Amino acid sequence: MTNQLDSIEEIMLMGPGPSCVFPEVYQALSKPTIGHLDPKFISIMDEIKQLLQELMKTDNRLTIPVSGTGSAGMETCFVNLVEPGDDVLIIKNGVFGMRMEDVAGRLGANVDVVEFEWGTPVIPEKVKEKLDKKSYTIVGIVHAETSTGVRNPVEEVAKLLEGTDTLYLVDTVTSLGGIPVKADEWNVDAMYSGTQKCLSCPPGLSPITFSDRAVDKLKNRKTKVPNWYLDLSMIVNYWEGSSRAYHHTAPINMLYGLYQSLVNILTEGLENVFDRHMEVHLQLADNLESIGIEMFVDKDFRLPMLNAVKIPEGVDEASVRKQLLEDHRIEIGAGLGPLAGKIWRIGIMGHTAGKENIDRLMKALRVVLKS
Amino acid sequence: MTNQLDSIEEIMLMGPGPSCVFPEVYQALSKPTIGHLDPKFISIMDEIKQLLQELMKTDNRLTIPVSGTGSAGMETCFVNLVEPGDDVLIIKNGVFGMRMEDVAGRLGANVDVVEFEWGTPVIPEKVKEKLDKKSYTIVGIVHAETSTGVRNPVEEVAKLLEGTDTLYLVDTVTSLGGIPVKADEWNVDAMYSGTQKCLSCPPGLSPITFSDRAVDKLKNRKTKVPNWYLDLSMIVNYWEGSSRAYHHTAPINMLYGLYQSLVNILTEGLENVFDRHMEVHLQLADNLESIGIEMFVDKDFRLPMLNAVKIPEGVDEASVRKQLLEDHRIEIGAGLGPLAGKIWRIGIMGHTAGKENIDRLMKALRVVLKS
Repeated sequence: MTNQLDSIEEIMLMGPGPSCVFPEVYQALSKPTIGHLDPKFISIMDEIKQLLQELMKTDNRLTIPVSGTGSAGMETCFVNLVEPGDDVLIIKNGVFGMRMEDVAGRLGANVDVVEFEWGTPVIPEKVKEKLDKKSYTIVGIVHAETSTGVRNPVEEVAKLLEGTDTLYLVDTVTSLGGIPVKADEWNVDAMYSGTQKCLSCPPGLSPITFSDRAVDKLKNRKTKVPNWYLDLSMIVNYWEGSSRAYHHTAPINMLYGLYQSLVNILTEGLENVFDRHMEVHLQLADNLESIGIEMFVDKDFRLPMLNAVKIPEGVDEASVRKQLLEDHRIEIGAGLGPLAGKIWRIGIMGHTAGKENIDRLMKALRVVLKS
Repeated sequence: MTNQLDSIEEIMLMGPGPSCVFPEVYQALSKPTIGHLDPKFISIMDEIKQLLQELMKTDNRLTIPVSGTGSAGMETCFVNLVEPGDDVLIIKNGVFGMRMEDVAGRLGANVDVVEFEWGTPVIPEKVKEKLDKKSYTIVGIVHAETSTGVRNPVEEVAKLLEGTDTLYLVDTVTSLGGIPVKADEWNVDAMYSGTQKCLSCPPGLSPITFSDRAVDKLKNRKTKVPNWYLDLSMIVNYWEGSSRAYHHTAPINMLYGLYQSLVNILTEGLENVFDRHMEVHLQLADNLESIGIEMFVDKDFRLPMLNAVKIPEGVDEASVRKQLLEDHRIEIGAGLGPLAGKIWRIGIMGHTAGKENIDRLMKALRVVLKS
């Protein structure tokens, strides 16, 4: 029997995630598995919580990684906070806003949507018009819309909710660890991310944080959370306190990986990490422009870590991606939904965000586009 | 900053899971991450499905690993199959039967329970009495009750459902890869397991299989699955077919680990694996008896891989576990719920099931019990 793992080669991951993994994280993943109730492991869990608080800029006690990918983080935030009949407003300008709408709807929320064109940012004034007409239990927004490369004005929308009881739910799957994310300063009540983007860890975990207001809403639910696996009211008893009640067996080795990636990022320093992403992004945008490839998003709202670029006329886009992967071992991403065939998504997330990687991509791209 | 991962030592994992991980699985976990839509990765996914079919003894097309731990597998089976108002019967004789009751109840099922004393097996005749009185949409049972060490008569209960429309849902978290599990022969409709027991892979994934009848129930639901993350009707489009639609980013490296563990098990041969578990179990039971420690479960219903043993009178059970861990780097498990303080749970799952490991445990146990 041929073992397929033997032929796995290193790929430069420049798609929308997973990103290139830190070498130290690979080492962490293969450390010996220990028990999920071993005091040594509990101590690692405690430090993961602290490191996540630092990364997310929050003092929220309920700051933990959920045992699933970024989408499980989205599910966790909604399923713990939504009760049937709750009025929820979703701010939508891409795939992940659509997903929020779907998730909230499945949980019995009355979902309203305020929508913006894909590739353009959320306009706070339009959101305000909605908020003036109706009060919402929850407002959900995506910080970094991975499907379009747009950075949404999360801080400005936060200001619209000041003084209300509305819970503010923010998707930071692609932004966390790449651009500033300030959960407390922005009065975010529920936030989730993923490990496979700017954290440069393989996919599999979703860091989340809940404010005290969100925890209150959870504690005062009329009905049980309709999802046993992601019920935070039980999960916290494993992540907090002295008794550490077993809920589900934690994904030990993935948590080693997350621990190591947080150590890497915070050792480099958050500001340095953000600067590195921005520098490499500017280099990429400049280089692409020099060969006639335009950016899809207006300069002021571009995400440095997820670059949506217009596919040049007459180019067979799938063939370019295939050649980059097969001949140059570089992965870039296709467009999703209405943007399929119109854009490529070039990720420079976390460990991928290095100048030499842009040089390698540009060299390959020149070869492929000429062929 | 001290890196806590540097001081992780190998522990002999003889608790209720995680178990000792195959050395080749550790290597697999740290293989380079590639994209979740990379043709190379799709090919690995396809082989994982085939290997799981072999392990689970099923031809079910919908046989995949879910991106969460064993409890996410339980959640997946129930949330995809239960619709509000469905009559569900849970057969309960331990923690994991209780969990089924809780999960099904949260989804709006009318849950009936037939209960047996913890540490004793399910009695099919009592189940029949329930089934004679009412017809159920779903009957749920735990094959290997990890909280008590009991093997339940899954095959005998299956016979009671022959000729009915009732879906048969079976928890094989601890049994799969340690004792025979025959999904098709037993007419199982939905089955889930975990990677951290007899598969000797770290926790984080849950292999599941759905019969055609179960898939029909899913396809004919009146309402959307109230859980986006675990909605199999969408997830299959990533695991099957030619287009491979993105749902959530698959946990790439954990899937490498599962692939490798399946290769290890099937290369050794299922019958050999089962024999090894049984031999080591008999050795353990004999050895324990020789120092006056009795088994908790009747011989005919003992699980080889999860040995519930009575704590000898006058022994400080927590102190014994602590000394085993700290002085001998051996983990054994405590009792749960009503069995806390009454039993230890000694796991010999997968890679842990070796004769030399029993020798090492017995040597340590003799030292600790004398101290």
